[in-house]
Amino acid sequence: MPQFLDLYPSSSPSNVHSILGANNVNLAKVETWITSRARGGDGFGEVKACLFVRLTTTEGLAGWGEAFILPCRERAVAEIIHSLGVSSNALETVSPWSFRDRARQIVSGHQSLDFSAASSALEMALWDINGKIAEKPICKLLGGDHRLPVPIYGNIWSETQWDVCSLENRAIELIAQGYKAIKIHPMLNHSITDAANCVNRVRTAIGDEILLMVDLDSQENLDNALQFADLIAPAQAYWFEEPVNGVDIQSLTKIRDLTGLRIVTGEKSSGVAHFSAVLSGGAADILNPDIAGIGGLLDMLEVAELANLQNVKVSPHCWNSMTVAAAAMIHVCASIPNAELAEIYPEYLEHGEKFANTGFWLDGQNAYLSDKPGLGIDIDVPALQNLTNDYKITFL
Amino acid sequence: MPQFLDLYPSSSPSNVHSILGANNVNLAKVETWITSRARGGDGFGEVKACLFVRLTTTEGLAGWGEAFILPCRERAVAEIIHSLGVSSNALETVSPWSFRDRARQIVSGHQSLDFSAASSALEMALWDINGKIAEKPICKLLGGDHRLPVPIYGNIWSETQWDVCSLENRAIELIAQGYKAIKIHPMLNHSITDAANCVNRVRTAIGDEILLMVDLDSQENLDNALQFADLIAPAQAYWFEEPVNGVDIQSLTKIRDLTGLRIVTGEKSSGVAHFSAVLSGGAADILNPDIAGIGGLLDMLEVAELANLQNVKVSPHCWNSMTVAAAAMIHVCASIPNAELAEIYPEYLEHGEKFANTGFWLDGQNAYLSDKPGLGIDIDVPALQNLTNDYKITFL
Repeated sequence: MPQFLDLYPSSSPSNVHSILGANNVNLAKVETWITSRARGGDGFGEVKACLFVRLTTTEGLAGWGEAFILPCRERAVAEIIHSLGVSSNALETVSPWSFRDRARQIVSGHQSLDFSAASSALEMALWDINGKIAEKPICKLLGGDHRLPVPIYGNIWSETQWDVCSLENRAIELIAQGYKAIKIHPMLNHSITDAANCVNRVRTAIGDEILLMVDLDSQENLDNALQFADLIAPAQAYWFEEPVNGVDIQSLTKIRDLTGLRIVTGEKSSGVAHFSAVLSGGAADILNPDIAGIGGLLDMLEVAELANLQNVKVSPHCWNSMTVAAAAMIHVCASIPNAELAEIYPEYLEHGEKFANTGFWLDGQNAYLSDKPGLGIDIDVPALQNLTNDYKITFL
Repeated sequence: MPQFLDLYPSSSPSNVHSILGANNVNLAKVETWITSRARGGDGFGEVKACLFVRLTTTEGLAGWGEAFILPCRERAVAEIIHSLGVSSNALETVSPWSFRDRARQIVSGHQSLDFSAASSALEMALWDINGKIAEKPICKLLGGDHRLPVPIYGNIWSETQWDVCSLENRAIELIAQGYKAIKIHPMLNHSITDAANCVNRVRTAIGDEILLMVDLDSQENLDNALQFADLIAPAQAYWFEEPVNGVDIQSLTKIRDLTGLRIVTGEKSSGVAHFSAVLSGGAADILNPDIAGIGGLLDMLEVAELANLQNVKVSPHCWNSMTVAAAAMIHVCASIPNAELAEIYPEYLEHGEKFANTGFWLDGQNAYLSDKPGLGIDIDVPALQNLTNDYKITFL
């Protein structure tokens, strides 16, 4: 990341670039918005509640972040964000490195997805500010290139009960929209044989050219996962995601060895130590931490680097609004050598357009970044406010 | 747990006992108190912020719980508690089993210490209510015996910087107070050799008869932990706690194999799946989940049962107020066959007396429960309110 010497020359042994002075930027306030659940695009699913952060400097420069949130934990994550803002000197500077150091001290090994999601949102906003100060897209600060297309896939997700037919139809719909890779969650409320039948039928419906990913959503039983892998052999799944809970590294390794399928894990986890353990255990072909949940861009980059040493790919999970966090994900994918397909929630895109000009665009096969600085995203704050059920401001 | 048929006969195949009707009890409100940090007893350390929950039934019966909280996350855990109360039917009954089922659905594999701490507090309060309905101490509902002494140890902890001398003096002080087993944290801000020197000096100061536990507070480096284990060989440590972060199961196993020391891990973790993975990996001699952090009494009992199958002990961590959660811990220890020494924070005891009549007493070697129903604890609510900086009530 040589470009970053621009911003934090003091942390580098060779100050070759001129100083932009990010070390002297101070933050004035932190704001959070939690949006209400909403109707999704094409009527297939619902858009979950989302949590946005805006950090504003004393000069009025704003940076946006987003946190991965889950039911019953939305306000909790917002509380952690505001607590980090006021009580711990974590935001004394806008350096993502200083922030991460301080956040790690505060965590002191007591890792939690909620805490990491809060950290992710704040660190993402710091990167947005730094990009704006440097007048460069974040991926450029990270040594990447915003002109490179970033391959994507469409995740077919709906919390509502579906039958095989509706899943098949939704897959056909996305292919018609241009998607070349899709993911399905066949086990949701279904038996193993019904779910396997569903996978095989979807494969038949979409043809052999499309990549089909299968997500098992953390089955409790190793044998179920193995039996299911056998039954879906005809569907040639591109990957086999979270066949059991990601904390069960031994079982993941066993499934990987026995099935020969590409194992994906990581979306429910946070902390570099966990991912390091997954890699040591030889439990994954692809890691999928969420950029809004793992702890921040720096943690994502560190995990990607560790993964790359073992020829493991990173396909970031992104069960978020498809605006702020999605932009951060695409910037990271454009900056690492081992990026796999980045996750897109097609159902969420329309809703995101109500309040965000994302600065990236999608053609179903790739995401394309702009040359706008930072995340490259513009938020229509009154529009966001309209969708919000919980807003909070803290002055720093 | 046969006695529990009294309360939930419908879940049992053989309704041999009369029905006490816990299935028909409804909850009216949930309240939380977050206490401010305070001066500890004997001036050695500070008492952390603590989070208490009171659930009150429509009949006015109250149950108390306590959540394990950490800096910047106190209000977050309270928010999860209130969210669980109102939005998810988790508290539709006072059955700990129903609550756990619902909490697990809500978590859907996205484990977090903050969420588990919130669940722990609510489930603990449900047990307190159930004990009061059944007019029995909780340990009796769990098949234990409140008359059995529960062995304890004193944890010498202080977040302030200490020198070897002050740690030595504090150890001698606790021995004088009657403690027969103490734990120290020698690595805090010290080099390996200084820390090892400290352990060996403490051993000399307390003599050979006292059990001395050494907590490494999750070192980042496996080799440091191994080197340290060599250096403290003369001190005959009774156990070697969290030499590296508990998520690094492989390294724990390696340390256990290479040093032959009793490895303790678990205080920073939650979720039965994690503990199951630790046991499968052969990584521990003793598990030390926190009763206010693991998810609840049922999770603690499940982990204890899994541990017992492998001859692994459970020595519950209890970095809490030494009132509500400590009572729950002692009830669990009095109910499982593989309880090891239960953790006591001597610095916290005096502060707890300001607002709680705990219903247990300690003689330095053991804890003794009373025959009072539920947790057996009485809280002086105005006194608690005086120590509180954040109170919240939600009507259910």
